[in-house]
Amino acid sequence: MSEKWKTAITNIEPNKVQLRGYSIDALMGKISFGQVLYLAIMGKMPDENVGKILDMILVSSVDHGVTPPSALAARTVASTGASLNDALSAGILSINRWHGGAIEDSMRVYTEIVERAKQEGIEIAEAAQIIVGEYKQRKEKIKGFGHRIHNKDPRQIKLYDTAKKLGIAGKYVEASETIREIFVKNGKDLPINVDGAIGAILCEIDFPAELANALFMISRMVGLTAHVFEEKHREKPMRRIEPSAWEYDGEKDKQI
Amino acid sequence: MSEKWKTAITNIEPNKVQLRGYSIDALMGKISFGQVLYLAIMGKMPDENVGKILDMILVSSVDHGVTPPSALAARTVASTGASLNDALSAGILSINRWHGGAIEDSMRVYTEIVERAKQEGIEIAEAAQIIVGEYKQRKEKIKGFGHRIHNKDPRQIKLYDTAKKLGIAGKYVEASETIREIFVKNGKDLPINVDGAIGAILCEIDFPAELANALFMISRMVGLTAHVFEEKHREKPMRRIEPSAWEYDGEKDKQI
Amino acid sequence: MSEKWKTAITNIEPNKVQLRGYSIDALMGKISFGQVLYLAIMGKMPDENVGKILDMILVSSVDHGVTPPSALAARTVASTGASLNDALSAGILSINRWHGGAIEDSMRVYTEIVERAKQEGIEIAEAAQIIVGEYKQRKEKIKGFGHRIHNKDPRQIKLYDTAKKLGIAGKYVEASETIREIFVKNGKDLPINVDGAIGAILCEIDFPAELANALFMISRMVGLTAHVFEEKHREKPMRRIEPSAWEYDGEKDKQI
Amino acid sequence: MSEKWKTAITNIEPNKVQLRGYSIDALMGKISFGQVLYLAIMGKMPDENVGKILDMILVSSVDHGVTPPSALAARTVASTGASLNDALSAGILSINRWHGGAIEDSMRVYTEIVERAKQEGIEIAEAAQIIVGEYKQRKEKIKGFGHRIHNKDPRQIKLYDTAKKLGIAGKYVEASETIREIFVKNGKDLPINVDGAIGAILCEIDFPAELANALFMISRMVGLTAHVFEEKHREKPMRRIEPSAWEYDGEKDKQI
Repeated sequence: MSEKWKTAITNIEPNKVQLRGYSIDALMGKISFGQVLYLAIMGKMPDENVGKILDMILVSSVDHGVTPPSALAARTVASTGASLNDALSAGILSINRWHGGAIEDSMRVYTEIVERAKQEGIEIAEAAQIIVGEYKQRKEKIKGFGHRIHNKDPRQIKLYDTAKKLGIAGKYVEASETIREIFVKNGKDLPINVDGAIGAILCEIDFPAELANALFMISRMVGLTAHVFEEKHREKPMRRIEPSAWEYDGEKDKQI
Repeated sequence: MSEKWKTAITNIEPNKVQLRGYSIDALMGKISFGQVLYLAIMGKMPDENVGKILDMILVSSVDHGVTPPSALAARTVASTGASLNDALSAGILSINRWHGGAIEDSMRVYTEIVERAKQEGIEIAEAAQIIVGEYKQRKEKIKGFGHRIHNKDPRQIKLYDTAKKLGIAGKYVEASETIREIFVKNGKDLPINVDGAIGAILCEIDFPAELANALFMISRMVGLTAHVFEEKHREKPMRRIEPSAWEYDGEKDKQI
Repeated sequence: MSEKWKTAITNIEPNKVQLRGYSIDALMGKISFGQVLYLAIMGKMPDENVGKILDMILVSSVDHGVTPPSALAARTVASTGASLNDALSAGILSINRWHGGAIEDSMRVYTEIVERAKQEGIEIAEAAQIIVGEYKQRKEKIKGFGHRIHNKDPRQIKLYDTAKKLGIAGKYVEASETIREIFVKNGKDLPINVDGAIGAILCEIDFPAELANALFMISRMVGLTAHVFEEKHREKPMRRIEPSAWEYDGEKDKQI
Repeated sequence: MSEKWKTAITNIEPNKVQLRGYSIDALMGKISFGQVLYLAIMGKMPDENVGKILDMILVSSVDHGVTPPSALAARTVASTGASLNDALSAGILSINRWHGGAIEDSMRVYTEIVERAKQEGIEIAEAAQIIVGEYKQRKEKIKGFGHRIHNKDPRQIKLYDTAKKLGIAGKYVEASETIREIFVKNGKDLPINVDGAIGAILCEIDFPAELANALFMISRMVGLTAHVFEEKHREKPMRRIEPSAWEYDGEKDKQI
């Protein structure tokens, strides 16, 4: 028989399940979902602050109402009498370059800036100026800035406030803020949006850009489940799901 | 124009994202992923203990190595050069009646027992005896007991210890323990497995049985992401993924 | 090593690909796609007439415009920058009980009627009367009759005309026509729709009811591909796809 | 209300279903599945020979046994108790760059060659020499040549014989044959494989490279359906599907 293939994620033995070397039962109750996510994917235990900011990111992305394509696709499939995993898969299949992808795209820009600063021994601000110029010249859009609906996204503000308080914000967050300043100077009042903010923080904690959408998908699975459940219990099968003709009739302005 | 359709999940207004009435930025940093999951799906804020046990369940189900069909399907698809969401969707599509489904199945048995006890004014133990007998007569298997590998699953033990400490364990946990006792009396030493334990706890916190697999899928998305990432970076495309000829070469016996 | 598992579908040897015993290169150019579909799935070569009617069914189901959930789901996913197979999978995941499922449902009714007639030694017409009565009593809808848009579906007419000409129409087609007559007598002018017609013919050629939707999915993959292609080349990413506010601007009334 | 969006694929009116301007009932029985596929996707009726070669391609790709990732993914998902469309979707999600993608890749090479010949006013053979050289210099592999199992693929031979007989083979087929000759001269006896042959023919009939995999997916859906059906009826749920330890036990060497 040929050589065995290898995995370093989870070790299973009788009455023993070890994730990246830690007994899962020892992790249960001790670490948060954000921490276990980091541990499983990155292969090492994050410090507590990294866990905290990941939990915040996971909470921030849970849902954004009925209009994102992922919610519409999941509901459309659910309305055909589909099983739960059919509908959730259709939602997951909607998360791509144009939906969620701005997180990854912004990470690539920030990384370019930080690497350029390092290579040329210049400040982040100066490197940002160069990179933004290059994007402009190539007529390429810098993702993670501006939003169809929000111009001062409370989720972005909360993330950055916390990242700064926890000592997580560094050169990548700085890069994002410099880009925003350059935009303003050029007469474009584009805020850092929630994707651009998550992107900067993921860079700070060494999370790979190619998995940025995984984080978004995992979090959004929660919202998609809520949409599928609501669709199945509140609507008739095979209805036409108008993406504009809806209204919110739930609770409002509750305090935690 | 016809009447608008309604949603009660998330309200979006400029610079405002409210989930079930709560501003998401106010939830960030305050509640855990388990709590936001409950809030989004069930429409009400869970108390802290419910949140804690949900977080534990989410951590417990994150991964179970390379052999579950979801890991194999995700890796098989990843090995074709698929995008991340292709591979994750294939994993999600594998979570069904025979994979993950035991949680939901066990919930239906426990619920039958608790309802029978209530209807007939009898003890849980007595009702369990009747229901187990009925399953036996119909030659139907009671799910959530026994495991191919583990006979004393540390995850189940941890969940039940915590559920009891937090005052969450009630009639459904009792039902599961009685079933186990009946099996033992009948000469079958089947432990409550992790699915059966999660099922009992989900009953205790009023989580709908039809969404039990959603919880499992959300948690397992983390492990699937790790598998897809490992497959892409450690293996060649289009390899034959032998489900038996593998070995674990990661870290072991680490202490948290 | 444990025993090998078995397959009887395709045998691969160097320079030899045999499907159900036939060299694929010998089949190419000799049999139609409908015939190869029957051969692959059923394991035996259909006679030419069965092939002809299957080809007609495959052509009949290729597309039904932009409003079916499968087209909307595929377009919604395509609009996020998804790859072709993401978008097609979302379409496939929409084909379920309420979308396409009427074919399978109708097959079960026709089979009930034909079996009842056989068991009780009565005419199809009489058995149909009994079964329709039973459905009415159980308040269950008989699928395959009536259509939101068409009351005299030209595809159904063509299928039945051909099935009769080719000697394929038998007791199942008779059952469907009797159901229609019973409906008319009861004051409900419900035509046999295209699903009900396909269902009857699939019964005549022994195609398994549980695979009826496979036939529909295979055929509809063509239309879905056209929709994904049109969406990608004609529309902007992330648009809101209104299921009602569209119009046809292609060619009309062409003659073959 | 904003302007309506447009579609040119299918027009639906009461008792009228027109695909690209043709009544579907008029097409039924008159054109083959290959022809309707071309019509639906390309928007124009192919001539009969184009239809013939497309039907041959569709038949050629129907199945390639249990080892391709699409078959393994579909069976893995089917073994979990999944619905038919879950399993088929997992199969479809496996068709990517490394599985099926060689058709598209080969089309891009042939197109480069034919365009270079045109631009520079040189022969196909000369242009092929240049392009193959460029690929070699960039250390990029030319896809569509060589096969793990077959060195003289009977499907390729049949396709080319027919394409030549029908007058379909032109510069693109010539390009593929020249590449093969260059390989042989360079000491690499790589045959044109079935993907490379299909690619050349799709170029000849103006089929867009970006949809090459759609054709493969549509055809392979048939084989995947057969695998899912066999898995469900012949195997136990949740078995380990060893990709190497199987054997063919069906019929052999049948004559059509």
